[in-house]
Amino acid sequence: MTNAATSETTLRVRYAETDKMGVVYYANYLVWFEVARTEWLRDHGWTYREMEAGGAMLPVIGVQCEYLRSAQYDESITIRTIGILHSPVRVEFTYEVFKQDGTVAARGTTMHAAVDLNGKPCRLPEKVREVFA
Amino acid sequence: MTNAATSETTLRVRYAETDKMGVVYYANYLVWFEVARTEWLRDHGWTYREMEAGGAMLPVIGVQCEYLRSAQYDESITIRTIGILHSPVRVEFTYEVFKQDGTVAARGTTMHAAVDLNGKPCRLPEKVREVFA
Amino acid sequence: MTNAATSETTLRVRYAETDKMGVVYYANYLVWFEVARTEWLRDHGWTYREMEAGGAMLPVIGVQCEYLRSAQYDESITIRTIGILHSPVRVEFTYEVFKQDGTVAARGTTMHAAVDLNGKPCRLPEKVREVFA
Amino acid sequence: MTNAATSETTLRVRYAETDKMGVVYYANYLVWFEVARTEWLRDHGWTYREMEAGGAMLPVIGVQCEYLRSAQYDESITIRTIGILHSPVRVEFTYEVFKQDGTVAARGTTMHAAVDLNGKPCRLPEKVREVFA
Repeated sequence: MTNAATSETTLRVRYAETDKMGVVYYANYLVWFEVARTEWLRDHGWTYREMEAGGAMLPVIGVQCEYLRSAQYDESITIRTIGILHSPVRVEFTYEVFKQDGTVAARGTTMHAAVDLNGKPCRLPEKVREVFA
Repeated sequence: MTNAATSETTLRVRYAETDKMGVVYYANYLVWFEVARTEWLRDHGWTYREMEAGGAMLPVIGVQCEYLRSAQYDESITIRTIGILHSPVRVEFTYEVFKQDGTVAARGTTMHAAVDLNGKPCRLPEKVREVFA
Repeated sequence: MTNAATSETTLRVRYAETDKMGVVYYANYLVWFEVARTEWLRDHGWTYREMEAGGAMLPVIGVQCEYLRSAQYDESITIRTIGILHSPVRVEFTYEVFKQDGTVAARGTTMHAAVDLNGKPCRLPEKVREVFA
Repeated sequence: MTNAATSETTLRVRYAETDKMGVVYYANYLVWFEVARTEWLRDHGWTYREMEAGGAMLPVIGVQCEYLRSAQYDESITIRTIGILHSPVRVEFTYEVFKQDGTVAARGTTMHAAVDLNGKPCRLPEKVREVFA
């Protein structure tokens, strides 16, 4: 691990994201993580879309999430994201999901490996590595 | 419209497919329609996967659905599907979604246009047209 | 139909919302419709969440959608929504989904029936009817 | 941890579950885990639906998943599930997701806490504990 940088994203809970327990279904936090890291990248000067167009992708190779409080329909949720460069071929994001009242709903981590458009491992583009550094 | 053929698919309602109203979220019926037409095609001797691999796709250009009764978590749902060839470039599927007790939960229709891998309109492969005929 | 009022919502396409065709999966437009009508209601002075808390719900009884152009990952999408009161027990929303370049990706309609928390048809709360009027 | 029991579930990958990378979106494995543990419970003599109706729920309090190979549209996926009783108030499920060719696509774990319908921690129903024992 060499470096870190933080950004924040806000989203509103969709009805579609709830389940019959009345709160957000657990898999949807991983969708929010994706939104959060997309915005993290944009905040740091490039987009995942451009990176893919440039021939590199960052598929998730591992995820973990701890659920502390349930999130409700129509709540305004804030996600604080940190991106970390682990090596020239691997990055990690950590996420804290805050409820509208400021308490933590969930904490998670995703690990990503850089691959080219054929799915072969590759080094992260120089420009991307600089974003993390 | 030249021809029609019917098939049936069964699936069980997932917790993920419910929402805080306690029943299946309305957009998920369109996912079930996709499952149903995939199975319809398989029942008729080929797969959508093979069709895509062969260079033709059938994106949805229109959908309509009428919701009559709600579907519950863990219910066994049966979908009766009919495929209709409208023209060499267009097909339609109609769906009836049955609850476990045999009553109708929903009825819907999807219209599809044949396109090649560049998204340009194309004629349906001969083999596919025969399936509908 | 007695009255109408318009509002606009903007959202960014999530990776999760795309499918292997490379564009947004057709069922996800219905999720966007839900986001759009939630914001329409908020723009008009109340929230669907409050309405549910007050004992009335607006389940979808019918939907139709026409797909004109595909929406891409990370595009900024704008949805123009109109709410219409059909009767004291029924409302309709119509949606136009605009791509980032201003062209129309899709057009749709949802019809809703007012029901109480037991799922029985009921009149829309006075306050809600006023929103549409 | 006192005991364990295994079951297997099979499902077919839906188009809706893929993303623009052409393979299954990572959050959808968590939906499959839900399907797998529902079937595990059914194989062991009761249903999650009945358990909820009886006043107890098993929300997820933690998840982790490791992604080894991507899963493709229309593949037949098999999930091998093991349920473990950690304590009178906590259960764990572990999952191995197999591709059609028998290789492992993913491995994961979910941890669950028993709560009553008000969301308060509670002991698992005796009948449920016996299932794990």
